[in-house]
Amino acid sequence: MADPRFFHKAKTLSISDILDITGCDVADHVDRSAHFSDVAALSTANSDDLSFLDNIKYKDDFAETKAGACFVSPKFVDLAPKSLICLVSKSPYKAYALTAQAFYPETKPETNISSSANISDTAKIGESATISANVYIGDHVEIGKNAWIEPNAVIENGVTIGDHCRIGPNTTVSHSMIGDHVRLYPGVKVGQDGFGFAIDLAGHVKVPQLGRVIIEDHVQIGANTTIDRGAGPDTIIGQGTWIDNLVQIGHNVVIGKGCIIVAHVGISGSTVIEDFVAIGGQAGIAGHLRIGAGARIGAQAGVMHNLEGGKEYMGSPAFEKSHFFRQVAALNRLIKRKKSD
Amino acid sequence: MADPRFFHKAKTLSISDILDITGCDVADHVDRSAHFSDVAALSTANSDDLSFLDNIKYKDDFAETKAGACFVSPKFVDLAPKSLICLVSKSPYKAYALTAQAFYPETKPETNISSSANISDTAKIGESATISANVYIGDHVEIGKNAWIEPNAVIENGVTIGDHCRIGPNTTVSHSMIGDHVRLYPGVKVGQDGFGFAIDLAGHVKVPQLGRVIIEDHVQIGANTTIDRGAGPDTIIGQGTWIDNLVQIGHNVVIGKGCIIVAHVGISGSTVIEDFVAIGGQAGIAGHLRIGAGARIGAQAGVMHNLEGGKEYMGSPAFEKSHFFRQVAALNRLIKRKKSD
Amino acid sequence: MADPRFFHKAKTLSISDILDITGCDVADHVDRSAHFSDVAALSTANSDDLSFLDNIKYKDDFAETKAGACFVSPKFVDLAPKSLICLVSKSPYKAYALTAQAFYPETKPETNISSSANISDTAKIGESATISANVYIGDHVEIGKNAWIEPNAVIENGVTIGDHCRIGPNTTVSHSMIGDHVRLYPGVKVGQDGFGFAIDLAGHVKVPQLGRVIIEDHVQIGANTTIDRGAGPDTIIGQGTWIDNLVQIGHNVVIGKGCIIVAHVGISGSTVIEDFVAIGGQAGIAGHLRIGAGARIGAQAGVMHNLEGGKEYMGSPAFEKSHFFRQVAALNRLIKRKKSD
Repeated sequence: MADPRFFHKAKTLSISDILDITGCDVADHVDRSAHFSDVAALSTANSDDLSFLDNIKYKDDFAETKAGACFVSPKFVDLAPKSLICLVSKSPYKAYALTAQAFYPETKPETNISSSANISDTAKIGESATISANVYIGDHVEIGKNAWIEPNAVIENGVTIGDHCRIGPNTTVSHSMIGDHVRLYPGVKVGQDGFGFAIDLAGHVKVPQLGRVIIEDHVQIGANTTIDRGAGPDTIIGQGTWIDNLVQIGHNVVIGKGCIIVAHVGISGSTVIEDFVAIGGQAGIAGHLRIGAGARIGAQAGVMHNLEGGKEYMGSPAFEKSHFFRQVAALNRLIKRKKSD
Repeated sequence: MADPRFFHKAKTLSISDILDITGCDVADHVDRSAHFSDVAALSTANSDDLSFLDNIKYKDDFAETKAGACFVSPKFVDLAPKSLICLVSKSPYKAYALTAQAFYPETKPETNISSSANISDTAKIGESATISANVYIGDHVEIGKNAWIEPNAVIENGVTIGDHCRIGPNTTVSHSMIGDHVRLYPGVKVGQDGFGFAIDLAGHVKVPQLGRVIIEDHVQIGANTTIDRGAGPDTIIGQGTWIDNLVQIGHNVVIGKGCIIVAHVGISGSTVIEDFVAIGGQAGIAGHLRIGAGARIGAQAGVMHNLEGGKEYMGSPAFEKSHFFRQVAALNRLIKRKKSD
Repeated sequence: MADPRFFHKAKTLSISDILDITGCDVADHVDRSAHFSDVAALSTANSDDLSFLDNIKYKDDFAETKAGACFVSPKFVDLAPKSLICLVSKSPYKAYALTAQAFYPETKPETNISSSANISDTAKIGESATISANVYIGDHVEIGKNAWIEPNAVIENGVTIGDHCRIGPNTTVSHSMIGDHVRLYPGVKVGQDGFGFAIDLAGHVKVPQLGRVIIEDHVQIGANTTIDRGAGPDTIIGQGTWIDNLVQIGHNVVIGKGCIIVAHVGISGSTVIEDFVAIGGQAGIAGHLRIGAGARIGAQAGVMHNLEGGKEYMGSPAFEKSHFFRQVAALNRLIKRKKSD
């Protein structure tokens, strides 16, 4: 069970509630009024808990689970223990996510403007917003309805932040326009000058960075990630894109909708990432490139050229996935040959 | 045009002003009194704007630009559209940078010591310095003339910061002596203990880190970058070096003048980087090495040995660039051979 | 000598004191009452100083050192200059560390709760703890005895922090239980939501992250490192583990005792790192893996499979060290062959 010091469970849920929330199917004989009190992992759940099978690696845990009910894909129903109620879904992890949200809805502290916050007289704070301790809010900033600016965040002059946003502790935001339902995790830095200068032996010459950062609705940005503002054009993060911790996004980068960008990824200046691209941890993408929609780039890949969409890439320099694994295999054959010489 | 919520344009500039600022050449027939109101990208500029051609990738944009004038290298003047005024320079990007600086000079808030700043009685604050909200300044700190310490920065005991520095929001600086005209972007951490300990199965034993960080004049350090202080000797960042976001500089590292260090680079302890070295994103350099002046290290390179200056290196482990590309080509030939077997 | 602006030397030490502290051996004829005033590097030490030889790279400095005494392994005693007192130890670096700690003990500001700190009425602050300027401490937080929470740190609701901890400036801690003698360097972010969501073209669905972060005693965590809380299980950092700067630890990761994790390492969700594993800078480890006790993973390695303990691994994808170097050698032979064709 989630530690009650940190998590507040809102209620219990019946099978009927869960079907409404998730659209799952369940066998006819199952009692829709049966109630469940929590979510849990397969191996730790008991008969009051709901669980899920998403990664086939965990099929043994599934076969032995003591959970009362479990979200599961149609193809794995046969592996279920007899007494388990199967909540059948093509997206069992999504069904689990929606159910867990219902048990543990996100909350924010009640509306409150901390007396220790420094808020410019020209800033506009939306209805029901919470401004926590030691927050700094500059001139002409606009904060949306029901937004939450957490302790020690710094929101610089002119920034706009939409409704229902949550801006984490120790973040800094400047030169940015942020949509609704955006979440910045602790320590995110958005809108600082990009790495722009003319190289000169007598001293590099700074190029004023005159663009902004535009963050569309429903974007999530991980802890200590950095997003530089544009040099003239804007840096843009598309709707519903999720960015993990410690990622670097250079100036003028344009990222499409629904992308997934894992920790320590670096995207160099002026590169365009089309919609639904997935980028593995520690991958790097050179500047002035275009990555086609739906491309999947493996962890630690090094991308030096434009990539066609819809394909999977690995390696540094990056090649298509099958090519990369043939490279590795060829190298290993070469070693064996040498050994047998 | 730059968003006036975030950027204040100081003035318009005549051709004559621009020649004074940049030292460019212009054809004799051009009217020196013609005025321009802004800078813009080639593709979005109009006849009131100045633009630049620096990367030949953008030559089509240059041929079709509606800009009134453009900074351009002598070799590309022939590609210019007829009506365009060519501001000819061997360093068109530098000329653009200087002009953009004239349009958009950096400003800081007027001199002000925020009432919410925590400043030790023994600290010395220079003339015209600005100390923003919630800043912490420890004992015996010295802040130079016209410096700006941004909100929620923490400057610990004994640190000295030179004139005209700008220390970003949510930064922490300890055990450091910082020169003039230095800029720390948001979230930079300078001067914390390096990763020094004696390995011991009964519990690693911390080695007190008794050195400092010395940052020379005109250094720029990107958002959330970390620079550890020396273990006994000092960690030193040479004059005019530019460091990007999320870079890690280990204890005792000595970096020369005018280096360029791109995001996510890691430099291990006690390594010496000579002057004018360029290091691409996500490259790593092992400890106790020397990298010769003017070396260029590619993105994601892994440097395990000393490198001679003036050459270009790639790969992990790093080799000279031509060697690296021969490795890649050899591997790809090997795959083809296998296929045709 | 360490800069007195930043470091306070507590006392001088006699040979007798040093033998007590370190358990070293020294030749019979040496005067146990001789005093030393400081520690210094081999090349800069004078006759009042103690130094150490740990890395054989520095044997020339050892042969010429002007230090009065030196910690040294039995096998290198013969290389010592005649007048040098050899303090002989199988762990000379550990002996140096303990001695340097005696000269320069860690101190914290005297007990003080800053008037600018924001502390919930329901928080419990231990005896002799120091709470610095602009700190935020949420509801039901417990801070141990003699702990030091540095300026602008944010400790969120319900967190417990043990005795003798030091929590750096601009850190954020939530959903965590931290043991004794733990040190978080500046900018660390611990306990935020992991990167958990169900992928969905209509908008990825957040999976509530219902676990915690458990940090055991004597752990050190480097500047701007990020550690996500568990998704259901907890994220756990084992006793005495040292983590460097800018490291990313994903949700549900379990790290054993005494591990060493260098800067920019990324460990993906649900991976288990057993005791005494060492991971080099910029290495990445995929999710749901197990790394055996005592494994050593090289810098920039990319680990895609479980690894057996006690061995050394390199490369991306990672292989055993000897295999990796055979790969590199084979590739280089292949290039030569091509050249000679």
